[in-house]
Amino acid sequence: MKRIAIDMDEVIADVRPKFLQLYEREFGRRPAEEEYWGKKIYQLPGAARIREFLQEKGFFADLPVMPGSQEGVRELMENYEVFIVTAAMEFRASFEDKFDWLQEHFPFIHWKNVVFCGDKSIVEADYMIDDHVFNLEHFRGKGLLFTASHNIHENRFTRVNNWEEVMAYFRQEVQ
Amino acid sequence: MKRIAIDMDEVIADVRPKFLQLYEREFGRRPAEEEYWGKKIYQLPGAARIREFLQEKGFFADLPVMPGSQEGVRELMENYEVFIVTAAMEFRASFEDKFDWLQEHFPFIHWKNVVFCGDKSIVEADYMIDDHVFNLEHFRGKGLLFTASHNIHENRFTRVNNWEEVMAYFRQEVQ
Repeated sequence: MKRIAIDMDEVIADVRPKFLQLYEREFGRRPAEEEYWGKKIYQLPGAARIREFLQEKGFFADLPVMPGSQEGVRELMENYEVFIVTAAMEFRASFEDKFDWLQEHFPFIHWKNVVFCGDKSIVEADYMIDDHVFNLEHFRGKGLLFTASHNIHENRFTRVNNWEEVMAYFRQEVQ
Repeated sequence: MKRIAIDMDEVIADVRPKFLQLYEREFGRRPAEEEYWGKKIYQLPGAARIREFLQEKGFFADLPVMPGSQEGVRELMENYEVFIVTAAMEFRASFEDKFDWLQEHFPFIHWKNVVFCGDKSIVEADYMIDDHVFNLEHFRGKGLLFTASHNIHENRFTRVNNWEEVMAYFRQEVQ
């Protein structure tokens, strides 16, 4: 059975609403999409300190589920070995939140199939779905770039804009 | 640079003293080595509940460092990319304790080189040092079995009895 490594943040967990909320709290307004197109919200002028919230307990606890990801992962599990692989190691406070979030929203994923790591080059898989180019660059299998504001100018990888496109890709692969 | 994946418990962290202590608390005596030779201490008659302590906060926080492992890992890092890979995912309460333990005793290991996982078949490396045969069985690289009471009857893998033997093995590999 082939194996798919699926990232958490910005692939199955939607981080953007929380960053927009934090930006609004700091600056009194929401940035328009065009402003943060091609970058992360915390890369907007003066917004670097927003990234520090990633180190706080609770940040990852209540992120919305990316639309279609629950049904998608469940369907993929019929034909593939699915691992959730998240670069949690930078954020000590995130471990339990991420674990609980997965238990709550993806209870059908066994703990054996969850990986908290730093450098994803350690991951042995056939496919990787990720929003970060640096995770796909050193991956030996097939990398799928899940669209996020910071990667829209990237064109080296097969792009999937949402979970419908992820599923369309794999339905074709299985055939 | 070749990569070595090194397990935590019973390889760089010594779990046995804590299990012996727990056994003594439950049964009023320490078991002799011969009693638990070929098994884990919690596999002794009536001792299964000792394993439940693995789920408690603090269990992994104060384990002694395996003799020679700090100097050993540091030396290996001169010639290899070293990753610490621990099957922490079964024990939610262990995440922060394990992370802090590494920070305290192995501060020279970057968070990028730490992996908390379940099934270690996800690990891509050239060497794996582990006390569990089931982790080495599906590993594509060279597996080194680090001696622990439960694996002494095993003979399918190159055995290293302690960190001196680990270092002797890799000093020969480097030549």
